[in-house]
Amino acid sequence: MADEFDVIVIGAGPAGENVVDRAVRGGLTAAIVEERLAGGECSYWACVPSKALLRPIDLMGEVARVPGLSLGPVDVAAVLARRDEAIGHFDDSGQVRWIESVPAEYVRGRGRIDGPKRVRVTTEDGGERVLTARQAVVLATGSTPAIPPTPGLAEAEPWTSHDVTVTDSIPERLIVIGGGVVACEMAQAMHGLGARQTTVLVRGRGLLPRMEPFAGELLAESFAEAGIEVRDQVEAVRVERPEPGGKVTVHLPDGPPLEADELLVATGRRPATRDMGLSTVGLPDGKYVEVDDSMRATAISDGWLYAVGDVNGRALLTHMGKYQARICGDVIAARARGDELPGMRDLADGYGAPQVVFTDPQICAVGRTEAVARADGFRVRVVDYDMGKVTGGYLMGDGYRGRARAVVDEDRKVLLGVTFAAPGASDLLHSATIAVTAEVPLDRLWHAVPSFPTVSEVWLRLLEAYGL
Amino acid sequence: MADEFDVIVIGAGPAGENVVDRAVRGGLTAAIVEERLAGGECSYWACVPSKALLRPIDLMGEVARVPGLSLGPVDVAAVLARRDEAIGHFDDSGQVRWIESVPAEYVRGRGRIDGPKRVRVTTEDGGERVLTARQAVVLATGSTPAIPPTPGLAEAEPWTSHDVTVTDSIPERLIVIGGGVVACEMAQAMHGLGARQTTVLVRGRGLLPRMEPFAGELLAESFAEAGIEVRDQVEAVRVERPEPGGKVTVHLPDGPPLEADELLVATGRRPATRDMGLSTVGLPDGKYVEVDDSMRATAISDGWLYAVGDVNGRALLTHMGKYQARICGDVIAARARGDELPGMRDLADGYGAPQVVFTDPQICAVGRTEAVARADGFRVRVVDYDMGKVTGGYLMGDGYRGRARAVVDEDRKVLLGVTFAAPGASDLLHSATIAVTAEVPLDRLWHAVPSFPTVSEVWLRLLEAYGL
Repeated sequence: MADEFDVIVIGAGPAGENVVDRAVRGGLTAAIVEERLAGGECSYWACVPSKALLRPIDLMGEVARVPGLSLGPVDVAAVLARRDEAIGHFDDSGQVRWIESVPAEYVRGRGRIDGPKRVRVTTEDGGERVLTARQAVVLATGSTPAIPPTPGLAEAEPWTSHDVTVTDSIPERLIVIGGGVVACEMAQAMHGLGARQTTVLVRGRGLLPRMEPFAGELLAESFAEAGIEVRDQVEAVRVERPEPGGKVTVHLPDGPPLEADELLVATGRRPATRDMGLSTVGLPDGKYVEVDDSMRATAISDGWLYAVGDVNGRALLTHMGKYQARICGDVIAARARGDELPGMRDLADGYGAPQVVFTDPQICAVGRTEAVARADGFRVRVVDYDMGKVTGGYLMGDGYRGRARAVVDEDRKVLLGVTFAAPGASDLLHSATIAVTAEVPLDRLWHAVPSFPTVSEVWLRLLEAYGL
Repeated sequence: MADEFDVIVIGAGPAGENVVDRAVRGGLTAAIVEERLAGGECSYWACVPSKALLRPIDLMGEVARVPGLSLGPVDVAAVLARRDEAIGHFDDSGQVRWIESVPAEYVRGRGRIDGPKRVRVTTEDGGERVLTARQAVVLATGSTPAIPPTPGLAEAEPWTSHDVTVTDSIPERLIVIGGGVVACEMAQAMHGLGARQTTVLVRGRGLLPRMEPFAGELLAESFAEAGIEVRDQVEAVRVERPEPGGKVTVHLPDGPPLEADELLVATGRRPATRDMGLSTVGLPDGKYVEVDDSMRATAISDGWLYAVGDVNGRALLTHMGKYQARICGDVIAARARGDELPGMRDLADGYGAPQVVFTDPQICAVGRTEAVARADGFRVRVVDYDMGKVTGGYLMGDGYRGRARAVVDEDRKVLLGVTFAAPGASDLLHSATIAVTAEVPLDRLWHAVPSFPTVSEVWLRLLEAYGL
C-alpha cells in the first residue's frame, strides 16, 4: 500500500508536531510517524515529568526562606500522582486527536527512510506501509541518552533521564553520574523527594560546565547546604550490580567504592538516527543530521530532507526544536508555493539558545557566555551583579542569593548574553532573550524601567554597573 | 547661616536620592532635605512593607496549588517581624550614611521653597537654615493619601496605606474603601494574615479600573474564592466611630450598615505640594508640578525648578520616580556642563509605565491598555491568551489560571501594551517592558524563543494567536 503526502515527518515529539502544524497551515498535506507515544520524549520522559517533580522542591526552597510559613513533610505519593497526571498516564490519545485535527495523518509505527522522499513504516502488528512525500521528509526523532563505556555500567542497567523522570519510588541512596542539566535537576528532585544520600559524580570541573562558571558554583553551594554531595573531577572506573535492580557499587580511582540503591547516568545524549534508513540516501547512521538555517539537510543535494530538534544537534532543547520546527514547516510550505520569506530562518540558535535549569537556584541563560563571546572574537565587557542586593530579591525571602551577568558587545553596545542564577528566575529570562535576540541597544534598555520591587530590577543594576 | 550647593533636593525618598546620586556623579554638589526618614514613603510605609506582608500570602497561594505540599498556619508575628526588618525598624541611619557617601549633604528638617533657587529648612529643633542652589532645586516630596469628604470619615481616623503597611495587629473585621492597587493588595494581605471578614467597597465598576478589564475580573474571582467580599458600585454615605480606634460603622446607600474593627481608605493620592512655599515662585499650592520630559517645571521661566516622582503626577510609582530622577540628575549635571544628550529624556512614561500589583493573581501591565490605545488613535488589534493553557502554567500547580493580552499597533506591527494577570507573573513583565519600550517588531519577537516549560511560553502563544 502506498500513500502520498506533501510532507512526511518521522517522530511525533513537540518538534515533529510543530512541523506538521505549520506545514498544514501552509496548505500542505502531512503524515507523522511515531513509534512510541505522540507527544514524544518531552511530554512523557523529560521536560514535563521532571518539572512536575521539581515544582514542589522549588516551592519548598521558596517557603523555607520566608519567615512565618512552615511546611509539613512532602507527600511523595501526591507529587508522583501529579507527575503522572502531567504525563497523562502515558495515554497519548489526546495528542493523537490533536494531530488528526490539524488535520494530519497519524501513523503509529517505526518509520525509516527508504530512498529519496520515501518512508517505510513497520507498524505495531509487524506490517509495513510505504509513504511517499511530494515535497519533503522531516526527521524529528530526537535523541537518546548516551551511556559511557565504563566497565559494568551498561550491564548494571542504570537509570537514565527516561527512567528517573517516571519512577514510582525514590531510592534511599542515589548516585548520579554527570554534572549537566539532567544530572543537576534530577539530583535535586530525588533528594528533595527522599533520596537522603545523593552523590553526584562529575568528570569535569564543576556543575553545568557550559554555563557561566558562577552558575555551577552557586548551585554547588546550594547542593552542599541541602546535603547533596558533589564530587568533582572523578570518574567511575567500574560498576557492579550483581542483581538486576539491586544494590549498585561504583568503584572510583581513589578511595572506597560508593554503594547506592540506584544509579542515574546523565552524561549527554546522542542523536536518534541509528537504524533510520539514512544510509539509503547516503547519510551516515547514528550521526547528527547537519542542516542549514532553513532546517534542510545540507548533504542531500535536491533538498527534500529536513531535520528538526535534537536530531540536528543545534540545541538539544524542546523549545528550540519547536522553534526550528515552525521555521521548517513554514519554509517547506513556502517553497512549495514559491514564496519563501527571509524571516523563515533560524536566527535564535545563532545568538545562543535560551535555557532554564529548574534547580534551586534556577540557572537561566541566553546567548553567549563570556568565554564563548571572547572565543567568537567579540570585544567583550562583562558586568556582574549580586541579585541578593536587589530589594525585590531580598523581599523574596531570607537568604535569597543570586547573581546576574551581562556580556556586552562593546563595539555595538548590545547584549551578547545574559545569565541569571537565582531562585524563581525562570520567567525573568525572557526579558534577556528579547534583549539579546532583538539586539536592543543598551541606551534603549535604559528606558525599559523594571517595576519596583521585583527581582527584575537587577536589569537596572546591571546597566548602572555598566556605567549608564 | 547660608549654604550654597549646585543642587538642592527636597524629599529623600527613592526619587530624591537618585537625583542626588546622579547629579553628584555628574560633578555637582548637592544637598537633600528630608522631614521624616531618608528612604521615604516607599521604604517604610509603602512598597517595601506591603511586599513583605504580601510575599507569604503569595507563597501560600502557590503552595495551595501544588499537590504534596501542606502549610501549617501562618505565624503572623513572624511575618510582621520580617516586615519590621524590611523597613529597618524605622531606622534610616543606613540611608543617611549612603547619602553622605554619595557624597551629599543630608539636611533633616522641613524644606520649603523660598523664592528662586532658595530653600528654607525648618530643622527639628525649630531652627532655620537657608540653602541656595547654583543650578537647580528639585521637588521630590511625593504624595499623601487622599481622604474622600464622606461625612464622619476623616473624624474616624481611618487607616491609610501609611498605617496598614506598618500595623502590628491584624483586625478581625476590615472594611476597605477603594478598588485600586493599595486597596487590592492590602485587602489580600490583611485577609491572608487573619482579617477573616474583609469587605472591599468600590465606588466604580470593578477592581483595578485602570487596567485591562479582565485583570480586575480575575482578581475579583480570586478574592471571592478566598472569602474576600467585594461590593461594586457602592459608596459609603456616612462613617461612625464613637471611640477612637474602636468599632467603626459604615453606612451605605442601601441595606444595613457595615461594622468592622478597622477601616482602610485607599482612594487615591494627592501631591505633597501643600505648604511647600510654591507660592513664593508663583506656583499654586497643593497641585502636581507640571514638568517637561527633562523633569523641569514648565511654569518656571528660567528653568531652575525640577520635580520628580509622585509630585509631578506623571506616574505614581516608585520605579518611575527613580527613573525620572536619574534623568533629572543627569540633565541638571549636563546642563551645568553644557553637554545635554538626547537620551536624557523621559521616554518610558510616554509608552505607559510598567506596574505590578502583588496580589494573587499578580496583575502586571506595561504600555497602553486596549482602551487607551484606541483613545489615543492607534489602529489596534488585541490578542488574548489563556495562560492556564500554557504548559509552564499548568506545571505551576493545579488550578493555575491567568490571562495575557497584547495590544498591537497594526500600522507599525509593534506592541503598544501587554498585560499578564497570573500568579507569579511579576518578573515576566520585564520582557514586555523591553518589547514595548524598544518597539521590537513582532516579526523579531518571533525569534525570541521562550524556554520550555516556563510561563513565558505565553509569548509564543500570543504571537501564534496574532497569526505569526
